[in-house]
Amino acid sequence: MNVIDEYGSDPEAAIAQAAARCSNWNRWGADDALGTVNFLDDKVRAHAATLVRKGATYSLSLPLDENGPQNGWKRRVNPVHTMMSTGQDTAAQMGTPHGLTAADDAVYMPLQCGTQWDGLGHVFDHGIGWNGRRGAEIVTSEGDSATGIENLAAPLVGRGVLLDVGRALAGETGELDDAYPITADDLRTTIERQGATSDVRRGDIVLVRTGQLSRVRRGMDHGEGWGTYAGGPAPGLSFGTADWLYGSEIAAIATDTWGFEVRPNEFPGSFQPLHQVALPHIGLLVGEMWDLDALAEDCALDGTYEFLLAAQPLPFTGAVGSPVNPVAVK
Amino acid sequence: MNVIDEYGSDPEAAIAQAAARCSNWNRWGADDALGTVNFLDDKVRAHAATLVRKGATYSLSLPLDENGPQNGWKRRVNPVHTMMSTGQDTAAQMGTPHGLTAADDAVYMPLQCGTQWDGLGHVFDHGIGWNGRRGAEIVTSEGDSATGIENLAAPLVGRGVLLDVGRALAGETGELDDAYPITADDLRTTIERQGATSDVRRGDIVLVRTGQLSRVRRGMDHGEGWGTYAGGPAPGLSFGTADWLYGSEIAAIATDTWGFEVRPNEFPGSFQPLHQVALPHIGLLVGEMWDLDALAEDCALDGTYEFLLAAQPLPFTGAVGSPVNPVAVK
Amino acid sequence: MNVIDEYGSDPEAAIAQAAARCSNWNRWGADDALGTVNFLDDKVRAHAATLVRKGATYSLSLPLDENGPQNGWKRRVNPVHTMMSTGQDTAAQMGTPHGLTAADDAVYMPLQCGTQWDGLGHVFDHGIGWNGRRGAEIVTSEGDSATGIENLAAPLVGRGVLLDVGRALAGETGELDDAYPITADDLRTTIERQGATSDVRRGDIVLVRTGQLSRVRRGMDHGEGWGTYAGGPAPGLSFGTADWLYGSEIAAIATDTWGFEVRPNEFPGSFQPLHQVALPHIGLLVGEMWDLDALAEDCALDGTYEFLLAAQPLPFTGAVGSPVNPVAVK
Amino acid sequence: MNVIDEYGSDPEAAIAQAAARCSNWNRWGADDALGTVNFLDDKVRAHAATLVRKGATYSLSLPLDENGPQNGWKRRVNPVHTMMSTGQDTAAQMGTPHGLTAADDAVYMPLQCGTQWDGLGHVFDHGIGWNGRRGAEIVTSEGDSATGIENLAAPLVGRGVLLDVGRALAGETGELDDAYPITADDLRTTIERQGATSDVRRGDIVLVRTGQLSRVRRGMDHGEGWGTYAGGPAPGLSFGTADWLYGSEIAAIATDTWGFEVRPNEFPGSFQPLHQVALPHIGLLVGEMWDLDALAEDCALDGTYEFLLAAQPLPFTGAVGSPVNPVAVK
Repeated sequence: MNVIDEYGSDPEAAIAQAAARCSNWNRWGADDALGTVNFLDDKVRAHAATLVRKGATYSLSLPLDENGPQNGWKRRVNPVHTMMSTGQDTAAQMGTPHGLTAADDAVYMPLQCGTQWDGLGHVFDHGIGWNGRRGAEIVTSEGDSATGIENLAAPLVGRGVLLDVGRALAGETGELDDAYPITADDLRTTIERQGATSDVRRGDIVLVRTGQLSRVRRGMDHGEGWGTYAGGPAPGLSFGTADWLYGSEIAAIATDTWGFEVRPNEFPGSFQPLHQVALPHIGLLVGEMWDLDALAEDCALDGTYEFLLAAQPLPFTGAVGSPVNPVAVK
Repeated sequence: MNVIDEYGSDPEAAIAQAAARCSNWNRWGADDALGTVNFLDDKVRAHAATLVRKGATYSLSLPLDENGPQNGWKRRVNPVHTMMSTGQDTAAQMGTPHGLTAADDAVYMPLQCGTQWDGLGHVFDHGIGWNGRRGAEIVTSEGDSATGIENLAAPLVGRGVLLDVGRALAGETGELDDAYPITADDLRTTIERQGATSDVRRGDIVLVRTGQLSRVRRGMDHGEGWGTYAGGPAPGLSFGTADWLYGSEIAAIATDTWGFEVRPNEFPGSFQPLHQVALPHIGLLVGEMWDLDALAEDCALDGTYEFLLAAQPLPFTGAVGSPVNPVAVK
Repeated sequence: MNVIDEYGSDPEAAIAQAAARCSNWNRWGADDALGTVNFLDDKVRAHAATLVRKGATYSLSLPLDENGPQNGWKRRVNPVHTMMSTGQDTAAQMGTPHGLTAADDAVYMPLQCGTQWDGLGHVFDHGIGWNGRRGAEIVTSEGDSATGIENLAAPLVGRGVLLDVGRALAGETGELDDAYPITADDLRTTIERQGATSDVRRGDIVLVRTGQLSRVRRGMDHGEGWGTYAGGPAPGLSFGTADWLYGSEIAAIATDTWGFEVRPNEFPGSFQPLHQVALPHIGLLVGEMWDLDALAEDCALDGTYEFLLAAQPLPFTGAVGSPVNPVAVK
Repeated sequence: MNVIDEYGSDPEAAIAQAAARCSNWNRWGADDALGTVNFLDDKVRAHAATLVRKGATYSLSLPLDENGPQNGWKRRVNPVHTMMSTGQDTAAQMGTPHGLTAADDAVYMPLQCGTQWDGLGHVFDHGIGWNGRRGAEIVTSEGDSATGIENLAAPLVGRGVLLDVGRALAGETGELDDAYPITADDLRTTIERQGATSDVRRGDIVLVRTGQLSRVRRGMDHGEGWGTYAGGPAPGLSFGTADWLYGSEIAAIATDTWGFEVRPNEFPGSFQPLHQVALPHIGLLVGEMWDLDALAEDCALDGTYEFLLAAQPLPFTGAVGSPVNPVAVK
């Protein structure tokens, strides 16, 4: 059943109802700044460490450079990396003794330009953010004083589970079509097909591979650039997965797409309605533009879809998101 | 015996001799971009995961914000974080439907401004960098084409060992004096006093706590600011530890100070001579400005100085360093 | 008579009364984006051109670099200028033919960090900006949609008049003391003493030299840095000059100080109360940190205090200020 | 006669010969940092002021914002303007007294991203820059220590002359075709057709309108974006104009195109060969992406092609270029 059949065609009403069903407000106290990351506790983490067998690592981050997916929408440029000194500067030029020279560099970047975490202060529902806070009071031009990403500096090492929906459902290509809405049933089917290591449990960081990034990357190899990867049509989670995201008590979710949910969005005239439930109401940490391809290859080979995942953000004080280099250890 | 007694007063000669003794050039082939991180292999990593018992995590990063330690030296400002949209923007102002609003942000930062890794392209000895490469050819204004930090995106999850030299040697305060040179003997004494969990082995990431950051932080509580933390006098590794760093076959080292080695440097008129051996010749990854205090407190309490450490950089293409949020899991 | 004797000790009441006396709201229509720059019309400009005699020019801008006056307050760093390519890059490295190489650069800067114009969207009185607009509606995180500095791209070439209050009133040093409030009488006395060329007329851009910058610069020559130039005690316009600024119908005013008005401000617990009248109510363009010393020297020598002044901002769309390199032509 | 017929097909030889014919090295001493701007002396400037009749002004700058012409080539993004505080922040949030609030902003921008001056340190011929200096010594990662744009802070107010080659030669459209090389004869013909006010004299700032920007702008009105304006095919000065640029003793030249010279360049496999003569050898200041359309309209109407032009750069210390908001006063 598609989303409109199930929830009606008015996104505002559908969002309000989903928010009512899926609210975690006050679950961890009025001062909470972690949301569902509270589910990722020491016990989950201790268990996650036992999943390391080979010791092999996979970085799930796209390269951070000027060739990234951004196209300038909303001033989101790709990172601009410049050198402050180089290997061409001589000790004489730098005024340093005994033949020492050093290279330094700097970067300008929107925090959401590449592989990233959306912080809890990133999205509001009618001006209200996580735990019922008023967005206008907590996220000002000085940053997010309540749920800044620095609150998540420590906890985000845990059990990662890859749900390779592309491989499980899309047949030979392993790539879901753009605009394909991944339903909760699709997630369940994927888990079943992948087998026991992909059971999703409380506190997990769930990685959903759609295969879109593989497709886009193939286009880049043919000189087509990123196309509309940043904001255009994409497979992604259906609005209908809100209840699954809530009920599964996962700590976080991340996808290999720009915006985590299906695009175009399922309601007419809508924009990222699942975000509007997931962040302010469920308190769910959302990762976007994660590169899951190499990890997925390995999981397909060894049939093991769980691993230790280190996905800590940089602690920018008051930031509503952060670049992240998630590393999976199998 | 102090460094000048042992190596003479000419830093250039001392560096050349240490470089000859401690070179890892070609150990991992002419194309190597990892240096001593090669020691951190899957086996080391698989063992490191077994060190997780409680599942407790410690972020070792300073906050990334305008109140950081930088004072503008060499254009190194503290991170400037600005919002691109906020919780104050209404859906009407943003042109978004059904009451959705979103906050975004951006940052400008020198990559070496806070808790960081120095990449292998950060320091040159007479124009020559890691593995004998000519700095002028590999680190240009377009970045480091040979040893960019993106090469280290995956491997840096391993065994961390804290050597709390401050607590072990400085008596009650637990803080070494500024200008105190930590010798290889000091490291060995610390290991002995701390006990078996602090044995240093091939592939380890060694964290040396001097206590300087605790002292500076106490000053900040009294309104004194960072003082000369960034570049001024500090305890740190003696030039004489080059052989220990080389012989121990560790993957990386990090300290709670600005510059990892003792300041002022031990040779007259010298500047960071140990860097000049460690990066280009040993191929050693060096971490600086790591906040080891909370972790050290815990280690002192439970007597366990080893842990799983996730210290992956952000993969800025061609960067000679990266901010890092190292997370220790005990 | 000092400000408190004249206006009472409550800044809020004094501001409200001055605002009522000195409002230019609706003087140029509801859509106006220029404020008092409307006074600088073609006729004023055509006359200003006739003031050029020698053809000599004076740049009134401080250098834009990392050695500027900012100390990081409110994330205002000094400009960070980095090269994107240099003269060290070879044609082989750049991939350019026939021996061509090119150097490029980039800058990060707060728009108010050096010699600058405050745009009309820079200051609000109880949330209300120029011409009665609600600040929350017009200056959002997307910038100033009503009075962005781009509106002032063309008009700011006109008659400049230097009022060298330092030289006129401070005796031998030519430098007013910090905390000295320049009154309307002081301005009138200065005009009298300087003679006919310093008559202030409708549409003028008035430059007030206090001498503070000369004093600070002397300190810098002795290694003292900028001290508290950015925000600390300074001579400057008294709150009581609001009526003069309004009644004189000048187009703009600029000083050689950080904040144009006297610091500390004259009312207890107050902060920049004259700004609160000048920008939202008078609609007055305010320039700060202008380097008037060389020009003042020349004016003192030839007794001519009027000149053509080109002080156009850069047209950053939606900006609430702009760096400016004002050039006086005598 | 086209360039290859006249100079042969080898750009390297043609450049060398033009450089020999058109060198101004040592004309103004070994320390010179101004190049042809030396021609713009007080006398030229005093005369230029007499050209102001109506007092009308024209800003020749494109807007500086995220919608600019850059497409990311060589990390050249468009300006990213972010607010540091806004009209939405309340006095309570800002901690300011008596209802005062203030909006601030910041920008990140490549200095060559919009309407700009190329400084003399921008281009090298076989590693040699203006006046015979070695690029590797003067333009390092710390900037241009010899010919930084700050040297041009004061002098650039002078006589502007518009050569509207598009209107003069392109018939009804007033727009030269892309790839059209403007020859010295074309310039002379334009001067003739425009009449006496467009005589080009020593010390002038010459503005050449090709009409390309009008064409691109029309495309933008139809939703086509900037297309290949930044770096693609364009009308522009032929390599053959080097001698005219040299012999005319103008102070500077600027066009309404990305790169001032014709694109594709006239020699096979060549890249900006006229730059390679103009900047290092003639010492000519070159302006690019100037918006000449409104001014040209006015000149066509009143038949007057000369005016006072204020085109001072911002004095970024050591910069090899600068954004500029040139203002013409007629």
